Amino acid sequence: MTTLMPHHDGSPLYVSNLAPDLGETVTVRLRVPAGYGPLSAVRTRSNPDHEPEWTDAAPLGSADGWEWWEASVTVRNRRHGYRWLLVHEDGTVEWLNQTGLHTIETLDAEDFALVAHPAPPAWLFDSVMYQIFPDRFARSAQADQRPMPDWAILAKWDDPVDPVLPGRSHQFYGGDLDGIVERLDHLVELGVNLLYLTPVFPAASNHRYDASSFDRVDPLLGGDEALVRLVEAAHARGIRVIGDLTSNHSGDRHEWFQAALGHPGAPEGDFYYFTNDDNTEYESWLGTPTLPKFNWASEELRRRFIAGPDSVVAKWLKPPFHSDGWRIDVANMTGRLGDIDLNAEVRQLLRRTMEEINPDTILLAESTNDAATDLQGDGWHGAMTYPSFTRPLWGWLCEPTGEPYLTAEGELRSDPWFFGQPIGGMPRYTAKQFADAVVRFTGSIPWRVRLGNMQALDTHDTGRFATHAAAGTVPVAVGLSMTLPGVPVLFAGDEYGLEGVDGEMSRTPMPWGTEEEPDAAARLALYRDLIRLRREHPVLGTGGLRWVHVDDAALAFVRESADETVLVIASRGDLDVSLPAGALPDADAAEALFGEATLAVADDGSVLLSAEGPAFAVWALPGVVVP
Amino acid sequence: MTTLMPHHDGSPLYVSNLAPDLGETVTVRLRVPAGYGPLSAVRTRSNPDHEPEWTDAAPLGSADGWEWWEASVTVRNRRHGYRWLLVHEDGTVEWLNQTGLHTIETLDAEDFALVAHPAPPAWLFDSVMYQIFPDRFARSAQADQRPMPDWAILAKWDDPVDPVLPGRSHQFYGGDLDGIVERLDHLVELGVNLLYLTPVFPAASNHRYDASSFDRVDPLLGGDEALVRLVEAAHARGIRVIGDLTSNHSGDRHEWFQAALGHPGAPEGDFYYFTNDDNTEYESWLGTPTLPKFNWASEELRRRFIAGPDSVVAKWLKPPFHSDGWRIDVANMTGRLGDIDLNAEVRQLLRRTMEEINPDTILLAESTNDAATDLQGDGWHGAMTYPSFTRPLWGWLCEPTGEPYLTAEGELRSDPWFFGQPIGGMPRYTAKQFADAVVRFTGSIPWRVRLGNMQALDTHDTGRFATHAAAGTVPVAVGLSMTLPGVPVLFAGDEYGLEGVDGEMSRTPMPWGTEEEPDAAARLALYRDLIRLRREHPVLGTGGLRWVHVDDAALAFVRESADETVLVIASRGDLDVSLPAGALPDADAAEALFGEATLAVADDGSVLLSAEGPAFAVWALPGVVVP
Repeated sequence: MTTLMPHHDGSPLYVSNLAPDLGETVTVRLRVPAGYGPLSAVRTRSNPDHEPEWTDAAPLGSADGWEWWEASVTVRNRRHGYRWLLVHEDGTVEWLNQTGLHTIETLDAEDFALVAHPAPPAWLFDSVMYQIFPDRFARSAQADQRPMPDWAILAKWDDPVDPVLPGRSHQFYGGDLDGIVERLDHLVELGVNLLYLTPVFPAASNHRYDASSFDRVDPLLGGDEALVRLVEAAHARGIRVIGDLTSNHSGDRHEWFQAALGHPGAPEGDFYYFTNDDNTEYESWLGTPTLPKFNWASEELRRRFIAGPDSVVAKWLKPPFHSDGWRIDVANMTGRLGDIDLNAEVRQLLRRTMEEINPDTILLAESTNDAATDLQGDGWHGAMTYPSFTRPLWGWLCEPTGEPYLTAEGELRSDPWFFGQPIGGMPRYTAKQFADAVVRFTGSIPWRVRLGNMQALDTHDTGRFATHAAAGTVPVAVGLSMTLPGVPVLFAGDEYGLEGVDGEMSRTPMPWGTEEEPDAAARLALYRDLIRLRREHPVLGTGGLRWVHVDDAALAFVRESADETVLVIASRGDLDVSLPAGALPDADAAEALFGEATLAVADDGSVLLSAEGPAFAVWALPGVVVP
Repeated sequence: MTTLMPHHDGSPLYVSNLAPDLGETVTVRLRVPAGYGPLSAVRTRSNPDHEPEWTDAAPLGSADGWEWWEASVTVRNRRHGYRWLLVHEDGTVEWLNQTGLHTIETLDAEDFALVAHPAPPAWLFDSVMYQIFPDRFARSAQADQRPMPDWAILAKWDDPVDPVLPGRSHQFYGGDLDGIVERLDHLVELGVNLLYLTPVFPAASNHRYDASSFDRVDPLLGGDEALVRLVEAAHARGIRVIGDLTSNHSGDRHEWFQAALGHPGAPEGDFYYFTNDDNTEYESWLGTPTLPKFNWASEELRRRFIAGPDSVVAKWLKPPFHSDGWRIDVANMTGRLGDIDLNAEVRQLLRRTMEEINPDTILLAESTNDAATDLQGDGWHGAMTYPSFTRPLWGWLCEPTGEPYLTAEGELRSDPWFFGQPIGGMPRYTAKQFADAVVRFTGSIPWRVRLGNMQALDTHDTGRFATHAAAGTVPVAVGLSMTLPGVPVLFAGDEYGLEGVDGEMSRTPMPWGTEEEPDAAARLALYRDLIRLRREHPVLGTGGLRWVHVDDAALAFVRESADETVLVIASRGDLDVSLPAGALPDADAAEALFGEATLAVADDGSVLLSAEGPAFAVWALPGVVVP
């Protein structure tokens, strides 16, 4: 890939207003390398109401080896796509969109896009998220006083995780919310500032995705008061807290489901997809009868759950709970069933309620595959999604271990776990394929929404990255999660080097007290350093992204703003990359921020990057000068 | 491009049921070249309700150098996307979707797709369409008896077209429907079997896209009875007839608009987007006040226009008119305005009405750019769309003339016309870029809908292809329109070699009587031959498409069914292509159907294709053997 290419993205260097209203005019800028072309004209092409509209760009001047162009775009739809047209003096035409430069016409879906829905709070982009699965995080003294539920199989904190049913769902370690409060200093030391709790509602499982009510916090976790204590204590430390709601289904013990089951005339009688007249048969999540699927055609369900100030969604954002938002479980399937698709209505209504109660909250969707059609800015601020970062990262940096493991279904597997995809194990990506996947799966998502996507190495639903990582690649992976556009996510325990082959085995209790062991200490230091890097350089949250080198072995990119440029390189093997003169005009001023790599500027201005692999290194450079 | 690649498409060789119902299971097949891989597994990956679902394929056996796999896919959504996963024994993974073979994960939008909406009539795929702009086609003797309207500027049949307002809209040649009846034998001789009439409703322009009523045929065209005569006469000759409706707007003289204008309380008061209280200001098509935009939120508008048996849409399909369907003008903008998007509702309701009145009718949309999001099979059977064929064809085969011309706005332009796009003239595509554009802009459209897309060299809205064509390329262009998947469209006059630099100058009256002039005779013969080719080989309508060679200079593809294979080659320059052994197992049996090219089979089984350029040639070969 050539390093010097025309560039535009959705960041403030290139877009004057990232939160425009419908009808507002936004100034957009393009930069092209000096001497590129020469160009006889630069234009934007929008497609309001699906009919092309063009504006002319004017040259802004040159700076640091780049020529800049500027044009106006009036926002006519709430997702207003636009692309750049570059007309060369020799008659050649190029198009620039979110997937790069093209010599043939491009798809509407891959346009750059302005979003005229309410913007997420700016703090989302300054966040480093820490995911806690409450049963496995920390157990307060009070937990010993609580009676066990009928379903629980009690485990001691250092028992191994049992991945097979019934243990899989019922093995109970008894972590609780006050346990989290007691460990908040750990989060402060790590430097994370956004806590995501998997569900805290009462349920009949350790994961609590089968809620029996959305109206109270599970007494096993300490009840409502414990949540109030946790959010207050977190806020006091500058840490925000979001919850986890299942909008696709509830548990079959849910009070709404129990009221509806066998009672077609009940107020809750149409909350689910009952398939017979007496409300005894029903649709459920992937056919799992304990997880009956919500029917969002029900107005009463909407009112109770997501619409208005008395809804579940509202309740937990309001005093005394003050949650800072929601992560929505199985958001991808929500409202969808065969011939029905109410997903857009649900996500829009849900967010509208949040805007009314407290717009300073965030809304993230679980959507673990291609999430682009749902991520146009009309509801979800971002997604827990795997194809745009997590899976290609594994493909590039992991190594099949060859160790057999038990699946959740009790099957003994010898091929490495890979996100439950039956693709015969772990795909083997090059650095270029990793970058190609990032581009492909972010190419149809507006920049602002992309910035809100959760960038996890792993979650409670996946194996632990460290289990599968090729030797020495954990710093590369953590580093990329902190430096590529998106919200970095740390699944509790990764900072101790916890392992787990799949999404059941990864739900390991936290190994408190092992902080001084060498491996854990090193891993903790790595996370602290990289989280600090992220938080001390706001350009990593909202700056532009420009790839400066991609080949099979290594990649390099810059995150850019007017204030600062951060250069990032990553390789799985030894690093030996040369960037041509002009790629980094201020390379002499580069200040090393992380990693052991060498950056040398040759006499001809080219930049040599070298390191023993696996390598991850970061430098700070001056910000971008716009003429 | 390698010629031997795993292949699947939506045609009957690979899909057992092209018109499944929701819940039905469809058998899908994949073929891979013998020795490819070896593969350890082949699977399908669907995404019902946006959650992945996998099925295993079983090997079917081998035939003619190909190994076949078969899997089941249950149709869970009305557009049910699926892709193929190929797992190699060495652990490598490949994905096959509508854009080809990929080594990284692919986008949902580019999946193959089954469509569980009512299928279009099969005759759509056997059709060769002939587009008539009634004012310019033929004038019956009765036309002389009719009084001229106030707006008309009378032209004699051989007057040059005036592209500048007011002549552009008001120059009136007086073609009428009985004129068409008198010339139907010309259509029969050509071999076309589907007549598309641009609007026939009364209006205040020669193009009649500014209808003053949808309730009667313009008396200037002969009135309702003339339409009855035309459809009857056409049907008697095996020619179907579709009309043209403007669902985005009407003329400002329209009876509905006149009733609404200044009368907010009128039954039609909410048919348009009035922007002030007294209904005197309103939204219109691209700001043109004579074309007020319909507001599809109006239930009464829906009732009168598109919903149910008393609607406009229904009326003209019923006796005595018996039209065979509609082409919908500005379908892309219909129902869309800023924050509003009712397009899906309108197209679905419109089609539902047609299904009720006569399902043996077709519905096509004008959508002249990337139309994929609207073309998922829920309403439009296909589109008059340019980026998937027409524009890339021009890019490849046209040559800038350098002749200045007057635009519709009266501006003198020296850069060649190119679909009104301000890209500095004509782009210059290679054969590969043409093929890439075809793939890109059909990659997100289900096969069945793609087959319904109108494949025009030009229309009443474009310059004439022949005006801009590089020397000798007209047969290549016409040939590709007849042989690539889609409905071939001939804009009346092209078969005489009529010219026109842009979409105004192309509306030339038909040069009746010049049939014996050498150029016209040759062009007529070309069209007759290629239309006959298309109609005599049904595989060109519904057969699979497999590219067998693409480079910058030339392309070759096969259309395939169990009955027949048709090999097509096209090049702008001299043709010299070698297909490797195995690419065409039955090459020895190839029977030349069209063109001057040579097909030779070498001793090693490779196939040599050569010709002087520009070249377009077609051969028939035996059908594909499925084991």
